[in-house]
Amino acid sequence: MNSGTTIIDVTVRLFKIPLDEPMGDAKHGEHTHFELVTATLRLADGSEGTGYTYTGGRGGRAILAMIENDLAPFLLGRDAREIDAIYDGMGWHIHYVGRGGIASFAISAVDIALWDLKGKRENLPLWQMAGGTGKIAKAYRGGVDLNFSLEKLVASVGGYLDTGFTAVKIKVGKADLGEDLRRMAAVRDRIGPDTVFMVDANYGFDVETSIRAAEAFKPFDLLWFEEPTIPDDYAGYGRIAEATGMPLAMGENLHTIHEFEYAHRFSKLSFIQPDASNCGGITGWLRAARVFDGSGIPVCSHGMQELHVSLVAAQPNTGWVEVHSFPIDRYTERPLVMREGKAIAPDTPGTGVSFKWELLERSVASSG
Amino acid sequence: MNSGTTIIDVTVRLFKIPLDEPMGDAKHGEHTHFELVTATLRLADGSEGTGYTYTGGRGGRAILAMIENDLAPFLLGRDAREIDAIYDGMGWHIHYVGRGGIASFAISAVDIALWDLKGKRENLPLWQMAGGTGKIAKAYRGGVDLNFSLEKLVASVGGYLDTGFTAVKIKVGKADLGEDLRRMAAVRDRIGPDTVFMVDANYGFDVETSIRAAEAFKPFDLLWFEEPTIPDDYAGYGRIAEATGMPLAMGENLHTIHEFEYAHRFSKLSFIQPDASNCGGITGWLRAARVFDGSGIPVCSHGMQELHVSLVAAQPNTGWVEVHSFPIDRYTERPLVMREGKAIAPDTPGTGVSFKWELLERSVASSG
Repeated sequence: MNSGTTIIDVTVRLFKIPLDEPMGDAKHGEHTHFELVTATLRLADGSEGTGYTYTGGRGGRAILAMIENDLAPFLLGRDAREIDAIYDGMGWHIHYVGRGGIASFAISAVDIALWDLKGKRENLPLWQMAGGTGKIAKAYRGGVDLNFSLEKLVASVGGYLDTGFTAVKIKVGKADLGEDLRRMAAVRDRIGPDTVFMVDANYGFDVETSIRAAEAFKPFDLLWFEEPTIPDDYAGYGRIAEATGMPLAMGENLHTIHEFEYAHRFSKLSFIQPDASNCGGITGWLRAARVFDGSGIPVCSHGMQELHVSLVAAQPNTGWVEVHSFPIDRYTERPLVMREGKAIAPDTPGTGVSFKWELLERSVASSG
Repeated sequence: MNSGTTIIDVTVRLFKIPLDEPMGDAKHGEHTHFELVTATLRLADGSEGTGYTYTGGRGGRAILAMIENDLAPFLLGRDAREIDAIYDGMGWHIHYVGRGGIASFAISAVDIALWDLKGKRENLPLWQMAGGTGKIAKAYRGGVDLNFSLEKLVASVGGYLDTGFTAVKIKVGKADLGEDLRRMAAVRDRIGPDTVFMVDANYGFDVETSIRAAEAFKPFDLLWFEEPTIPDDYAGYGRIAEATGMPLAMGENLHTIHEFEYAHRFSKLSFIQPDASNCGGITGWLRAARVFDGSGIPVCSHGMQELHVSLVAAQPNTGWVEVHSFPIDRYTERPLVMREGKAIAPDTPGTGVSFKWELLERSVASSG
């Protein structure tokens, strides 16, 4: 009965990792640490694969509890090669308490572990498994910097350029729109006209304010205006795009395939940004990307650049990899590799993400 | 600083309660137990209020983890009288891992505790706090019986009539539509033409099959056809209603106010069934009910009849209380009171739901 690819163990770990400095955005308050939840699956043949998810500091223990108590009993004894069936099965197994939220994060970690196992078994890197179009992706540095003073913001963005980035994103959503404009003007002045520039409001605005803000942002030649308003208001995004012509981006808060379908249908986005850590792992990310096939909308990513580089680079409608301010890749064997401002996917079989467990254990913040 | 109404302690408990017999529906497999998660808030003045949520057997530990690790730190030190501000604040506090799923269940338990405290403080029963239109609600017995043989199903429904119910619901969604029809025919035959009859497919069908099923169900004179298809497909419900004229019901899987707004706008429902255990507690349930104000759509409930009786009875657009097969009220000081087929709300200040803690502790299933 037990083939070598039968799942025989699920080990889950939670790490609470301090940030180098407190970071802020318009809606999540101040971040002092982030949470990393890892899920390692062991198969009967002794092989192991690890997946993971992360949070801005809350929910990690609930994710761990769901994997340990609800998903692990479902996984044990199943054939790890049946990724699609396991993915759909996990969703139904916890459907009543799922369809978004914690369940999406928990399923994501497990799904990524299954792809890690697949790549190791088939000797394939993730960028080849995920489409294979390419292994190089455009990349930008995303700041979590709404709480930075103007001087610190400009210095921070300057630092991004110094380390080779040619595209940068800052947070907006100050109570006073004028302050956002002064910050954007100072940043555009610092980075010059040739650097790609985006802003992210983390849904700090309602639709009408978003429209006013988008009009006011036009002089700064933005590549996109990210999450102007709540992700639940699909049609509201459409109204902002129609009223202003401003290119809009979102996706980090879309968790189910239905949510991506609604965004595709109603939101008139110019960029879509699924995050494999919360939209169902690699299976969920690829299914979300397929919703936008043929739309001409580039597929980008949010967070965990060390993994997303492979997914984004592999798509025919390849977009931008966000190099996020939560430095998960600092705790991996291969921090993100950049060359001439672009990100290079690893050729290692599996996801190409191997954690430095001892470093993680040493870095854990005191909880409480 | 610390007024008497300051929250000084949050105690969370998880109970895994065995069912008298295994129960099944179209999409959640067999249930052998349900989970009850209680949240008790203690205030500086020594008063205590208890809220709760429940699951079909999975997710309970994640709910407990979220209340203990993420919500409790937010709650401690806040004024328990500020229910709306705490409700909105909890949503933003865990927004990135929230907006549905486990977060909705966790917030619900805490919110119900706040209302329990409010009622005790103001000497008001829940039906008066929640609108006050009335304290008597129509009620029906909802079976979780798709796994029952035809004979057992008919006997089970007969038992509902024997205990005074004048309205009954059964599960449908067998692989063979003909089998559903035979079961419905046998039940209608048993209950006679004057008993109110509903069916519930737990989204076992796609839209096209739902339309065929709704047409085939017409001879059985149903009050409603519940959750024919997945709750995420708001417009799909609208297509089923338009194509068949069959009255549709759903709501137990809508967790955020946005989801209720989409259902209101697109689903052409005849009944809405929010569940205070997973749509944000009493605050969330009342906000959901308000979405349907003026629509003529009766507001019903799902599960935990011992609490919902007060909410449903209190609405101007009062609907039907489901008397669910998870017998939470068996573990309370006042199991649901019925008179002439209707449910009577308690006059006890607070929610009117007090748990028999020792009975709960004795009844816990071995976990594993």
